[in-house]
Amino acid sequence: MEAYAKRSNEELKALQEELRQKYEQIKAEGMKLDMSRGKPSKAQLDLSDGMLNSLKDNRDCIDENGLDCRNYGEMEGTPEARRLMGDMMGVPADNVIVLGNASLTIMFDNVARAFTHGICGNAPWDFNSKVRFLCPVPGYDRHFSITEYFGVEMINIPMLPTGPDMDMVEYYVNNDTTVKGMWCVPKYSNPQGITYSRETVDRFARLKPAASDFRIFWDNAYVIHSLYEPDERDYLPEIFTECAKYGNEDMVYEFCSTSKVSYAGAGISAIAASKRNLEDIKGHMKYQTISHDKINQLRHVKFFGNFDGMLEHMKKHAELLRPKFKLVDDVLTRELGGTGTGSWINPRGGYFVSFEANEGCAKEIVQMAKEAGLILTPAGSAFPYHVDPLDTNIRIAPSLPEIEDLEKALNVFTTCVKLVSIGKILSERE
Amino acid sequence: MEAYAKRSNEELKALQEELRQKYEQIKAEGMKLDMSRGKPSKAQLDLSDGMLNSLKDNRDCIDENGLDCRNYGEMEGTPEARRLMGDMMGVPADNVIVLGNASLTIMFDNVARAFTHGICGNAPWDFNSKVRFLCPVPGYDRHFSITEYFGVEMINIPMLPTGPDMDMVEYYVNNDTTVKGMWCVPKYSNPQGITYSRETVDRFARLKPAASDFRIFWDNAYVIHSLYEPDERDYLPEIFTECAKYGNEDMVYEFCSTSKVSYAGAGISAIAASKRNLEDIKGHMKYQTISHDKINQLRHVKFFGNFDGMLEHMKKHAELLRPKFKLVDDVLTRELGGTGTGSWINPRGGYFVSFEANEGCAKEIVQMAKEAGLILTPAGSAFPYHVDPLDTNIRIAPSLPEIEDLEKALNVFTTCVKLVSIGKILSERE
Repeated sequence: MEAYAKRSNEELKALQEELRQKYEQIKAEGMKLDMSRGKPSKAQLDLSDGMLNSLKDNRDCIDENGLDCRNYGEMEGTPEARRLMGDMMGVPADNVIVLGNASLTIMFDNVARAFTHGICGNAPWDFNSKVRFLCPVPGYDRHFSITEYFGVEMINIPMLPTGPDMDMVEYYVNNDTTVKGMWCVPKYSNPQGITYSRETVDRFARLKPAASDFRIFWDNAYVIHSLYEPDERDYLPEIFTECAKYGNEDMVYEFCSTSKVSYAGAGISAIAASKRNLEDIKGHMKYQTISHDKINQLRHVKFFGNFDGMLEHMKKHAELLRPKFKLVDDVLTRELGGTGTGSWINPRGGYFVSFEANEGCAKEIVQMAKEAGLILTPAGSAFPYHVDPLDTNIRIAPSLPEIEDLEKALNVFTTCVKLVSIGKILSERE
Repeated sequence: MEAYAKRSNEELKALQEELRQKYEQIKAEGMKLDMSRGKPSKAQLDLSDGMLNSLKDNRDCIDENGLDCRNYGEMEGTPEARRLMGDMMGVPADNVIVLGNASLTIMFDNVARAFTHGICGNAPWDFNSKVRFLCPVPGYDRHFSITEYFGVEMINIPMLPTGPDMDMVEYYVNNDTTVKGMWCVPKYSNPQGITYSRETVDRFARLKPAASDFRIFWDNAYVIHSLYEPDERDYLPEIFTECAKYGNEDMVYEFCSTSKVSYAGAGISAIAASKRNLEDIKGHMKYQTISHDKINQLRHVKFFGNFDGMLEHMKKHAELLRPKFKLVDDVLTRELGGTGTGSWINPRGGYFVSFEANEGCAKEIVQMAKEAGLILTPAGSAFPYHVDPLDTNIRIAPSLPEIEDLEKALNVFTTCVKLVSIGKILSERE
């Protein structure tokens, strides 16, 4: 297809008219569809329903330590849950604490503690002095919201096909004592689905932070969320092993959860860290809780059996998700291929497709889609302060809708992309 | 029995020798018993085992709003859970947020937020300026630990049979802008089992705090935890209704949980507050979590049915606990009555019996018991900074042990009380 930018005004205006009619027709149909969040679909949730009754009776409530999990205790989580979540991240159970239903809460709490009490004996981060975080963009909006909430200054680090721009990361981390942390989704990143390369991970591990309380928030949210068979999966080196080579184990907090494995919001979450960091964290956590919901931890272990069982389970998720991601790529290719109206990465895992529209078009596309009944993640969400400097990025979350609805949604989306792109070209020619 | 203090040295020394032999015999038996925490017994936990399978399949996972609780959303909790927990506290569901497995975490988080962001638009509490909390003593150690953790200065407020000394409370709250909060366990207080009187609650409701961000942390942990039938239960006025009479609804955060209703550590918790306070709290909470474990909320509602079902359930707990509390009172009366070695309140609910030994005896009693294999809550725990000024208070937690073990434990305990008391009298006569 010929790129729009190369077509004549007449051609574009004719196309614009045609697309407008199509858009008005869509609007008239009164669609209502929400693709704003990476929620699992009903069919995906159904996969875990065996978990509702996985604990048959109270004999199933005793953990490997012999502890009755219906009672208080074991703030670190049950041994079997620590092992399962450790296996998920590829770290020993001893380096894992299993917590409640949301890894987001652990991340928030760790930032909060750094401000109120400091990390590992360091002075607390100061609300009245500059505290900065590196933020790969586009990235996960809820990460950026946490640091925004605490008044942290966020620095955009462009994502490359290999992960964050490590030249910039090294420059800031190794020289700037006000840089106290960095958000990362290292595998199937939100929203682009990029997995950090071996070299990127190695460069992370070799960082020499200027601030002794600098921590990487390694949110391995999609660690086992591959869409394809083993040989087509992305590989991410295990961060602690890499860091250990350079004596840097204390530099990383790793997070994961079963929110997109079992139930979203009723799963279990975990943090992995060095012994020193875990002792530090426990020293704070003990004021906040006696113990987490160990029954739900056992429920998960009983349902999955072990990590192999969990991987088998993830294959079923992949079977449900793969056709949706394929459809996104197919429709975008069919409708937009060659038009020069945008680009996207077809990811091998995770929950999103990141669409890069032409400059200055993203907001308008999202707004147009909204008026036609399709809710997308607000433009700019993938950037600190919700500011996408070039106004290009749109996050597509294909997991929730049924496949028929997704096709309709993509039809609306591509129509909006074309219309806004043409409008932009024409207005620039005026 | 004649009070020890009135007996001759010879009499006391003979008794001491007899008790020493008994103590050594106990020690030789090698008992191991932990009465340090208010944990429910196995039999109590068994009462809730129907909850393990109360959700039969995924149709049971849809809440009254039609939301699939296996997915994200509804940060306030499900409507039915908010109603149940609201009924527990006697407040409308609209004034309730249902959260995770621990009310302690909600309390901690509210104190943390007050320091990092401030309450309802007020300036954040300042780590570098004086922030003070009123602490009824004896009280709940984990409350005091939270405020100690945040560097809050804690002021002891003596507990009277009617609740905290309200003259002192009024003096501080109404005049001192550094007094930002107060811990309360208003019903069957931890550890004394005292329920605040109508007048006390009225005086709370009529407070005119000098600090606009003063908040009462009304921890109604034992709101339905009565040991007896309805006509023998303590009555506590509902705090928000009382506060509303004086336009003071914003002054109180109320907390409760099912930790001692269903499972300790795997229950659900709730906060009740004015609309203004709830909006403020949600405005912070949304950065920390997407939603709490709604499946566990539904599990609870399904198991109890409604608040009446929960009250019926609590009767079964009472049947299991009552004989233990009776035994404590019986053994203490039989062994210590008239000896002048201590006093205690026989409570009508809650989880503890608070024992007041003679001055300077508590630590030694707890230590002696420990050497004989009986772990009690460390002396001083019921006071801020773990300092019991007179060293008199010992918390007895009779819920966990089987009745036979409890009898043995009380035998050890009273032996230690007598020995330490006699030793004290004799040393003072020297």
